[in-house]
Amino acid sequence: MRVGTLYTGRRRADDNCSDVAIRIFVTGGTFDKEYNELTGALSFKDTHLPEMLRLGRCRLDVSVRTLMMIDSLEMTDADRAIIVEQCRQAAEPRILITHGTDTMIDTAAALASALPASTGKTIVLTGAMIPYAFGSSDGLFNLGSALSFVQVLPPGVYVAMNGRWFEWNRVRKNRETGTFEAV
Amino acid sequence: MRVGTLYTGRRRADDNCSDVAIRIFVTGGTFDKEYNELTGALSFKDTHLPEMLRLGRCRLDVSVRTLMMIDSLEMTDADRAIIVEQCRQAAEPRILITHGTDTMIDTAAALASALPASTGKTIVLTGAMIPYAFGSSDGLFNLGSALSFVQVLPPGVYVAMNGRWFEWNRVRKNRETGTFEAV
Amino acid sequence: MRVGTLYTGRRRADDNCSDVAIRIFVTGGTFDKEYNELTGALSFKDTHLPEMLRLGRCRLDVSVRTLMMIDSLEMTDADRAIIVEQCRQAAEPRILITHGTDTMIDTAAALASALPASTGKTIVLTGAMIPYAFGSSDGLFNLGSALSFVQVLPPGVYVAMNGRWFEWNRVRKNRETGTFEAV
Amino acid sequence: MRVGTLYTGRRRADDNCSDVAIRIFVTGGTFDKEYNELTGALSFKDTHLPEMLRLGRCRLDVSVRTLMMIDSLEMTDADRAIIVEQCRQAAEPRILITHGTDTMIDTAAALASALPASTGKTIVLTGAMIPYAFGSSDGLFNLGSALSFVQVLPPGVYVAMNGRWFEWNRVRKNRETGTFEAV
Repeated sequence: MRVGTLYTGRRRADDNCSDVAIRIFVTGGTFDKEYNELTGALSFKDTHLPEMLRLGRCRLDVSVRTLMMIDSLEMTDADRAIIVEQCRQAAEPRILITHGTDTMIDTAAALASALPASTGKTIVLTGAMIPYAFGSSDGLFNLGSALSFVQVLPPGVYVAMNGRWFEWNRVRKNRETGTFEAV
Repeated sequence: MRVGTLYTGRRRADDNCSDVAIRIFVTGGTFDKEYNELTGALSFKDTHLPEMLRLGRCRLDVSVRTLMMIDSLEMTDADRAIIVEQCRQAAEPRILITHGTDTMIDTAAALASALPASTGKTIVLTGAMIPYAFGSSDGLFNLGSALSFVQVLPPGVYVAMNGRWFEWNRVRKNRETGTFEAV
Repeated sequence: MRVGTLYTGRRRADDNCSDVAIRIFVTGGTFDKEYNELTGALSFKDTHLPEMLRLGRCRLDVSVRTLMMIDSLEMTDADRAIIVEQCRQAAEPRILITHGTDTMIDTAAALASALPASTGKTIVLTGAMIPYAFGSSDGLFNLGSALSFVQVLPPGVYVAMNGRWFEWNRVRKNRETGTFEAV
Repeated sequence: MRVGTLYTGRRRADDNCSDVAIRIFVTGGTFDKEYNELTGALSFKDTHLPEMLRLGRCRLDVSVRTLMMIDSLEMTDADRAIIVEQCRQAAEPRILITHGTDTMIDTAAALASALPASTGKTIVLTGAMIPYAFGSSDGLFNLGSALSFVQVLPPGVYVAMNGRWFEWNRVRKNRETGTFEAV
């Protein structure tokens, strides 16, 4: 059913596998940071999402679009308005957003306010504590996790980190441990 | 599990995050293969699961147990009986099994036959096309994916590969492409 | 002095850096082995040498040529004759050969017999205990090491492994430890 | 050292392999930078040298000592005096220094001034353009290269980068390309 019918957000009686179109919006964050060897600073070039999907041998029907490439500490209300608007316009009811972890929950709140569950959209935000391009990144694990949650969770806005999912308003980032926890 | 009651296999009205005990059974497979630099052959030593969970900054309540370390082409009925029995005895209703991809579906069938959905167990099998210890492995992506599906899918036996989930009797491995597809 | 004059094998009074043409012959070996994810076997595709030189930001004047892509246990006298002949014909007096470690010393002996130091050629053989494409390979270290030795050692045939250089007839591979040692 | 006599800095007639004690001084630099996942900044923890030597299956007689862990742009004259003094006191006539690339040549000049070739010491400085802990680092290649040059080059102070060696006063870092070149 790759084309033509919208996935309704709940599994039908005859569903026997995941076969659902997913939109991925890239906003930057640690996920996509790189080391600039000429300046010695961390910066952004292109997103690593396509390479990561290839590495994961992902066979989902995903389309990736980069909205911005910024550190989430620098994300403005105007940036969030763009993300909200893109999610509103997306044909796919299943949306994954890669995002810096520092203000991920703020963006989740903006999305939940503008796109309540009644709109039928399942939106999952994820990120990484270590850039994918570096060794020892959690990025590939988080991507696999978030892509799975977005296929199965009912409409709503969620954060997927540390192998867990959280409703947007029941989670906080613990800055001492670098992990997300329920509140 | 963190809070003293058994997770029932379906989300309750007040569930707002994933907080559920998960049992991981390791059986070997490509996932855990290593290159033996003295013999030049592929072989098994210890499982990489704990290292992978650490890399994924996983904060789920998981306990890992190695049942066997074998190539799934060498898995016997007796081996499968061990896996089934361990799943039956596991206190956790959420079980993840790492397994070679070649006979993963056979083991899934044995599990589905012995442990129908009425037992309340959600069992997800996953594997890897490339050993985790090598570069370019899909293992970390698959682990993140399978750990997420096992938290959210209803009781039953599933295969999680290529970012997708499949009911055990609606999937096959395409040996030309190395991917799993719905049947 | 990239072109035109032959490097004489000893530093001249006005030498102040390494600026010398080097020929690299690729013969396969563990260095270039890959994991075939469809068969689960180790096999050869293309050499990783160009990628490794790029990773090392190598700015030497090197030209790479693949002579064969085989496990050194399968190397025949005819294969060795090809290697010897290619070294004889090479315009560059500095030659690096990547080679499986199991019979590296046999090939070194064939080279030393056919191309004595009086021919002015410095030939260094190196290999790897772990394929470069896998994690934890010694390949990049060995390549950096062998490329350095070949620039500075006087004419002769050498093995470069474990950070050390050995004259071809004063070395053996210790198969218990997987290291090369002086005899 | 393995055989009881000090290596004199020139190969003896009966030398047939590298068997020489080497001192490694660690000063920090990009080589050893890490990504701090709590702050998102680059910083130093412990040196990666021992791990790198293990990865390279290095069987040289090396001893590693960390003198400082700093960005070479912050290195002061007092820091350089420490490095010079440590090199002067080292029993080993073969010394490798890991160093940030930005002021590597300044430190080399200080060493050459204080420890002329007549002291019999061969000192090689190396570094990395990308931290070893990240993917795609040149660190392991450079370490293999520098360890090899330091065994074979005559007394003097050298920079080993990009697979090449340079006398300390005939090299500059090209900041546009990130490579070292002869002057």
